[in-house]
Amino acid sequence: MYTRRQTKILKTLETMNLDGLVLNAGASITYFTGLHFHLMERPVVLFVLRGQNPLIILPELEKEKLNHLSFELDSFTYPDNPALWPEVFNRACHRIGTRRLRMGYEPKQLRLLEYNLLTAAHRTLSFVDGDQAIACSRSIKDSKESDKMKKAVSIAQDALTMALVSAKIGMSEKELAAELVIQLFRHGSDQNLPFSPIVASGPNGANPHAKPSERKLADGDLVIIDWGATWQGYASDLTRTFAVGSVAPEYEHIHSLVTQANRAGRGKAGPGITCQAVDLATRSVIETAGYGECFTHRTGHGIGMECHEEPYIHAANAQILRPGMTFTVEPGIYLKGKNGVRIEDDVIITEQGSESLSSLSRELISIDKK
Amino acid sequence: MYTRRQTKILKTLETMNLDGLVLNAGASITYFTGLHFHLMERPVVLFVLRGQNPLIILPELEKEKLNHLSFELDSFTYPDNPALWPEVFNRACHRIGTRRLRMGYEPKQLRLLEYNLLTAAHRTLSFVDGDQAIACSRSIKDSKESDKMKKAVSIAQDALTMALVSAKIGMSEKELAAELVIQLFRHGSDQNLPFSPIVASGPNGANPHAKPSERKLADGDLVIIDWGATWQGYASDLTRTFAVGSVAPEYEHIHSLVTQANRAGRGKAGPGITCQAVDLATRSVIETAGYGECFTHRTGHGIGMECHEEPYIHAANAQILRPGMTFTVEPGIYLKGKNGVRIEDDVIITEQGSESLSSLSRELISIDKK
Repeated sequence: MYTRRQTKILKTLETMNLDGLVLNAGASITYFTGLHFHLMERPVVLFVLRGQNPLIILPELEKEKLNHLSFELDSFTYPDNPALWPEVFNRACHRIGTRRLRMGYEPKQLRLLEYNLLTAAHRTLSFVDGDQAIACSRSIKDSKESDKMKKAVSIAQDALTMALVSAKIGMSEKELAAELVIQLFRHGSDQNLPFSPIVASGPNGANPHAKPSERKLADGDLVIIDWGATWQGYASDLTRTFAVGSVAPEYEHIHSLVTQANRAGRGKAGPGITCQAVDLATRSVIETAGYGECFTHRTGHGIGMECHEEPYIHAANAQILRPGMTFTVEPGIYLKGKNGVRIEDDVIITEQGSESLSSLSRELISIDKK
Repeated sequence: MYTRRQTKILKTLETMNLDGLVLNAGASITYFTGLHFHLMERPVVLFVLRGQNPLIILPELEKEKLNHLSFELDSFTYPDNPALWPEVFNRACHRIGTRRLRMGYEPKQLRLLEYNLLTAAHRTLSFVDGDQAIACSRSIKDSKESDKMKKAVSIAQDALTMALVSAKIGMSEKELAAELVIQLFRHGSDQNLPFSPIVASGPNGANPHAKPSERKLADGDLVIIDWGATWQGYASDLTRTFAVGSVAPEYEHIHSLVTQANRAGRGKAGPGITCQAVDLATRSVIETAGYGECFTHRTGHGIGMECHEEPYIHAANAQILRPGMTFTVEPGIYLKGKNGVRIEDDVIITEQGSESLSSLSRELISIDKK
């Protein structure tokens, strides 16, 4: 599988007149090799090049990870003393050849740490944004990958359902978030959650990236819960908005609008449709109702091995959706100082249209227990 | 507090002939401003410069975070469409001035994403490794910071104690790790653990960075548990090694050696002592006993807002320890294909010597329950 993925990306890169890929620790190394490395103070760099074995530079204490690989991988290891790293990078770069090389890289991933070591070791290495090329492979999920995502969604849904059993008026956002995290692990999430759950009640909900606070759920609040699980390296990312006790008619109204916008976005999504058309579909529901200014972010983002990846669903993205792409549809309305609503599902593009991986009710359910 | 920290770092930078700091999302932004940003596809950049307000570039949907700051902060926000980001970076860089600027940055943190935007927007910005300057501030913990670390250690210790109650022979590494994660949250850890716990039994323990597997704890194993909690943004990182049932005399012997090495390292640590002297203290115990080749990594790493930070405790680091520095002491012996032992404590340098923040027994305790 990994050799196939490497061969495919090299073909894509060839059409861009690129010689190969240079990757540092992160999801793409895992995608192309099955190896996991955390982004740490010790750099890990993988080269994928035509006509030669892939090559990795890594800390000595990580070399056990290279046992039992299903493909040939050249490796160069370095010890703990950073003063000795440049020499190891030199030897590795000598192995790949000192000719001029145009290499695809990931601007969101590659750090100056690796870049400085690489450019010092190989003077004619040039770096070209490889995000689109990598996305051509990674954004199209095969059935094994989408099955893992479905499982990540299912774990998240079960965990929320259980966490809601203990939700009550007067509970703090933090307490509810902690219970949700415990339930995510009880239901089998990998240990690295895609992100820490958001529980944002009342005015905190007006901040799309709020952190759970000591604020207690109060009668009349809306409460946004944005959470996800990881299963075998694949993420889910969902949001539902609940009422606490009984809420004002305006809040019921904006909840209903966001539900419609979410449905419109999912309905629009399909093969051959652009990302911007999906964004337009959710946004026009909210704009038509007069709340356009209160929908302050894009409609969604791709999801897979990373919680945020290609394709990004925003108004300026003319990229065309293809079967196997997976992304979130998450419109919201944020009323500053008052409340917020967001409803988010994970969607996969099929041959015919799209399918939501998530099925949890999108109705305005009320947390009534005291 | 944040203004004081900014003033202090600017003084340090002045001695290095630097004009200021340029930081992207990560712990240092939090340290100098109190603001939290995740490292994501949307870049966040903070400038700290003499004689002007600090300035931040961030996504529009994050700007709510800037309310209620205790200091003046200029801000430039950008929308979701990446094509519009360069113009915002241009305006921000115009504000800081187009004169030649030598800026400290973090090679382990700054990505090509931010670097490309910054260098396109400000042609005479030069980037100088600022890690040491930042470490002068961040590595010396004040009493509020060390109190948070003590709490992070205490949560971790309590969580392991409870997880061990359900540990038994035949349980898989993954099951024990999952139980430990749940206990970490039950005991109040922040939602972002410093790292996913390692539970590595038998031969898996010979890989210092093993991931928990389906392997079941078996009579005669050693099992390494390496785990930590986060409390108000500060990390703990501990390791203990247990016996499963009864183990071979050689394993008891290496456990005893690593315990001695750990004690020797903690005993050596103190103000005025070099990092390499601490490394030598642990290493010589293990080398003298003939296991030098089996201690494959440095003695430890600094810990605080990041789980790995300055100072790094390795044989080539002549840096001098000062009161308030916090780091791990974690010698190990790894017998390839057989077993591994590691014992790790978090230590703070005091005026007189050093103090271990962790007090959990380092004896070879046996998991006997079936």
